[in-house]
Amino acid sequence: MSKGRLFILSGPSGSGKDTILGGVFQRLPEVRFSISCVSRPMRPGEQEGDKYHFVSREEFEQMIAEDGLLEHNCYVGNYYGTPKKPVEEAIRDGADMIVEIDVNGADQIRAKTENTVSIFILPPSVAVLRERLINRGSESPDKVEQRMKEALVEISRASDYDYIVVNDRLEDAIDDVVRIIEADRLSKERFDFANYGND
Amino acid sequence: MSKGRLFILSGPSGSGKDTILGGVFQRLPEVRFSISCVSRPMRPGEQEGDKYHFVSREEFEQMIAEDGLLEHNCYVGNYYGTPKKPVEEAIRDGADMIVEIDVNGADQIRAKTENTVSIFILPPSVAVLRERLINRGSESPDKVEQRMKEALVEISRASDYDYIVVNDRLEDAIDDVVRIIEADRLSKERFDFANYGND
Repeated sequence: MSKGRLFILSGPSGSGKDTILGGVFQRLPEVRFSISCVSRPMRPGEQEGDKYHFVSREEFEQMIAEDGLLEHNCYVGNYYGTPKKPVEEAIRDGADMIVEIDVNGADQIRAKTENTVSIFILPPSVAVLRERLINRGSESPDKVEQRMKEALVEISRASDYDYIVVNDRLEDAIDDVVRIIEADRLSKERFDFANYGND
Repeated sequence: MSKGRLFILSGPSGSGKDTILGGVFQRLPEVRFSISCVSRPMRPGEQEGDKYHFVSREEFEQMIAEDGLLEHNCYVGNYYGTPKKPVEEAIRDGADMIVEIDVNGADQIRAKTENTVSIFILPPSVAVLRERLINRGSESPDKVEQRMKEALVEISRASDYDYIVVNDRLEDAIDDVVRIIEADRLSKERFDFANYGND
């Protein structure tokens, strides 16, 4: 059986990475998604196991103590983390798994996981990113500038990633990520030499 | 301007790599093909600059002396080699170039060229390879066994390559090679960070 792969996907707020991911899972429904654990309460409209597993603070700290997370951080007093077990299972099963994470989380995951493949989603330009954040209309000018600052810090780390996808046209960006995943399935590390020609 | 890439393509006799290559150039006509230099005389049906550049023995030895080749070898008293200049031009131009070569030539090229991407074409199984060689009908049983021996030596080196493509169905194998080339264009090493967002 060939080995699976953990794909790390990052990109600044406004890069469109959530929409791209939606398109990728439509095209490649067999790819698994890494569901984060969080210690914050569920918000209206959220569902357990959809994007998050909701656990108590104590359960989360237990996971940290048992080395059950590939990465975690604390944000506004709540824990967020990536459970290790589903990733190990995917790799063992020969499956692809995507984890969506910021640049710091990506660093932690790379340090704990062998042979990850990482993809950074860039907006077409910094000017377009600002426009997109303004056009959301939901945030004050101050908040937009703060997000821009955070985005620039993220973008400055793009060269840590294996692949760069510029999200100019959404459909092209989805094609690009699909292409990266499909080409990776042909990589030497994932080829089952032991069973070659045994069909 | 982004950098180009040299793709090394290898595979045993009977793996179908020539037919795959034909399909790849049809799909991606912008990809360049590395034309070998040979010191043997032209055969009927061959054309200068099609698959080979025909040069004299003296010209070939001059190229060796001037370090003008990425690899070369001597076979039945004739020289065969890969000129360095067209490869350097392709990388500088941001283009893709494919060189078709055996496992030993691939070793020499990797030693002289940075950041190559290599692809090995495998037949579906060793049994199928033998069938294909027999069904060609052009070779004696002895010759078939000799080719099988050579093929097994080549196959044993497949794990030196970045990607493995099993040529079970021709169209799938062409898709696979195209995918590898297209995904590689998104790799970090080829991204033009200096001109990002400058359109």
